[in-house]
Amino acid sequence: MSVHPAPVEDLIDALASLPRIGRGSAEIIAYHLLNSPAEEASSLAAAVSDAREKVKLCSVCGALTENDPCDICSDPKRDRARICVVELPRDIPPIERTGSYRGLYHVLMGRIAPLDGVGPEALRAQDLAERVKKGGVTEIIFALNPSVEGDATVLYLKKLLTPLKPRMTMLARGVSRGTEIQFSRSGVIEEALENRREV
Amino acid sequence: MSVHPAPVEDLIDALASLPRIGRGSAEIIAYHLLNSPAEEASSLAAAVSDAREKVKLCSVCGALTENDPCDICSDPKRDRARICVVELPRDIPPIERTGSYRGLYHVLMGRIAPLDGVGPEALRAQDLAERVKKGGVTEIIFALNPSVEGDATVLYLKKLLTPLKPRMTMLARGVSRGTEIQFSRSGVIEEALENRREV
Repeated sequence: MSVHPAPVEDLIDALASLPRIGRGSAEIIAYHLLNSPAEEASSLAAAVSDAREKVKLCSVCGALTENDPCDICSDPKRDRARICVVELPRDIPPIERTGSYRGLYHVLMGRIAPLDGVGPEALRAQDLAERVKKGGVTEIIFALNPSVEGDATVLYLKKLLTPLKPRMTMLARGVSRGTEIQFSRSGVIEEALENRREV
Repeated sequence: MSVHPAPVEDLIDALASLPRIGRGSAEIIAYHLLNSPAEEASSLAAAVSDAREKVKLCSVCGALTENDPCDICSDPKRDRARICVVELPRDIPPIERTGSYRGLYHVLMGRIAPLDGVGPEALRAQDLAERVKKGGVTEIIFALNPSVEGDATVLYLKKLLTPLKPRMTMLARGVSRGTEIQFSRSGVIEEALENRREV
């Protein structure tokens, strides 16, 4: 027997299906939403549908945006000679927050993952090649996730773009600042050894 | 400058205002909601409004319920001689999950908190007295939060109910199973010492 009324159980299920929310937190959030003023609960629902309605993908780079092209693509102060390639729109904010990248972006909308049935044709790879073909792009920075699929995708894109002759780089691999050697996985240390540099 | 389009920023704000969700998680959830099928996003909104519409407070005990009186109050197998007093509806599920309590409940809808302007008249204390007056109740179990306000509320209720002569008990206080003495706050250890028992 459930310890909650059915609609509360349904709400907990819906919340627990979101990333980063376990059942314990889902229960706390559900009771909070039931206990809060009507405006607060409805403003959450409105924010969800609002964001889904107003936000689309930039037709140039694929970032989430209200305006098309997006604010980054249409910003005259951005460096148009560099394109940073990411898997998904969600990967752009963490890079923007560093404040140390002033180029453009290109969202692939995924990475090659044969086990999930995602081949290169499902990605916005050809669009990237078109952008490079138009000229003016001197460097492509691959910022894909450090995984087997991410690496395979970089290899595929390298092959695709090589005839166009841009400089191609990828994010450095090594031990992450703030982590400890003691707790680092052996694959991480292996890559950090391989990529060791002079001091 | 925000690194998100405004509607996405609004959604992140709405999510981050919920308990247990920090800004980092709010960002991840927002991008998940924008990236998920329309049905999934709208089912969350529907679950919120559905729960708020269909769920009300039981007129007897104050628990969240679809039916009035609630399933617990109307269950002939529950022990009607015991009433467990809790602060809020959210305190009932954790007690139900223990499976070791088969009595009824009474939700106070808060606790006496002078600093927040909550006096005894704001609580469902008189309703509790009425339930006891009707007869058949032999034990009141106070399951209020172990805090200064919870304890003050128990003292108030004890005074209110003493003329009606039910047995009154409260949850045991001590070191919690699974915690460690080393990390327990001194107030916790103090109460555990005070309430020590023979072995």
